[in-house]
Amino acid sequence: MNIRMLMGLSCAVSVCAMGLWLAKSPQALAQEKTGAKTWVEFTADGKVKQPVGYRKWVFLGSPVTPNDMNGGEAPFPEFHNTYMDPDSFAHVEKTGGYRDGTVLVKELVAVGSKEESSGKGYFQGEFSGLEISVKDSKRFPNEPGNWAYFSFGHKYPLKPETAKNGAASCNSCHEKNATKFVFSDLYPVLNDVLQKAKK
Amino acid sequence: MNIRMLMGLSCAVSVCAMGLWLAKSPQALAQEKTGAKTWVEFTADGKVKQPVGYRKWVFLGSPVTPNDMNGGEAPFPEFHNTYMDPDSFAHVEKTGGYRDGTVLVKELVAVGSKEESSGKGYFQGEFSGLEISVKDSKRFPNEPGNWAYFSFGHKYPLKPETAKNGAASCNSCHEKNATKFVFSDLYPVLNDVLQKAKK
Repeated sequence: MNIRMLMGLSCAVSVCAMGLWLAKSPQALAQEKTGAKTWVEFTADGKVKQPVGYRKWVFLGSPVTPNDMNGGEAPFPEFHNTYMDPDSFAHVEKTGGYRDGTVLVKELVAVGSKEESSGKGYFQGEFSGLEISVKDSKRFPNEPGNWAYFSFGHKYPLKPETAKNGAASCNSCHEKNATKFVFSDLYPVLNDVLQKAKK
Repeated sequence: MNIRMLMGLSCAVSVCAMGLWLAKSPQALAQEKTGAKTWVEFTADGKVKQPVGYRKWVFLGSPVTPNDMNGGEAPFPEFHNTYMDPDSFAHVEKTGGYRDGTVLVKELVAVGSKEESSGKGYFQGEFSGLEISVKDSKRFPNEPGNWAYFSFGHKYPLKPETAKNGAASCNSCHEKNATKFVFSDLYPVLNDVLQKAKK
């Protein structure tokens, strides 16, 4: 084995080591015993913990259902800042579909004001709530589309972990009104990659 | 020089090479001749090209100024999905300030509908416009706060590159009404890290 071969081998070894190191970085995926690779963590009794770092995931869109347009109390007050984990977004870009392990985050934000120097409208104020949905055919074999829905609350302080909602409370609406259980038509960033993936 | 030393040297060399390779990746910073490191590219005559990949930058917030609340035509119609480049966001998290080279993107999105299964409100439809602001004390020494403002248009097709707006059109409002030239109060994600950086 000459010096060139040794250096090649060593280089390959250190690139592999670097790969392993990157895979163990804080943004690495958690491999659950019973479910798909995902960016959220589950407790032993099937609850999900609050997602970490989701404000740096891929933003999809932000509808607003103001309380003052919904009889004083919107079902989801008020802005819905919606994100997808980066790995699942990359999967949508590539395939046009939602992989097992996909996490969608809906962060609720209260309306802070209705007039600013840019005009009249609705402007985001304080964070007020957090909900997620997770698709996993192994973990949620009996949920329609294998999507489960979790709420950490609609006011602070939020729950640190939470059990999934009953199918009737979320899934029935998503099944009836959304496309493949996701309201992609309301999220232009997601809709754009879905349209491109079709071509 | 024994084998262990050789492998150590080779490892160091390949780690350096990996570092250089990462630094040359598509998301690498462009070092402009006359300005700070930034995530946008300027032409030789000082125009800026459309930012690339900004929908994966850090989302800050999304006000909506609907046309129907602004006499039929809002100054910035209608949703303003606002992003900051990741390096500058990390700098805000660390220091609470805006570094030279900071890029803010405001992507305009038309209201698509006003009622969905989640209630009445404003829901995002089609992308309609794109504007950015760039802070750079070397490139824009005479602009208030060293911020320059660029518009690629309020309807598609957008301009591929554009010259900066006159100070009166954007900067005067930002100088008068915003905090350090940025409407951070309207962007809860940015506001949150600014508050944390103060502590």
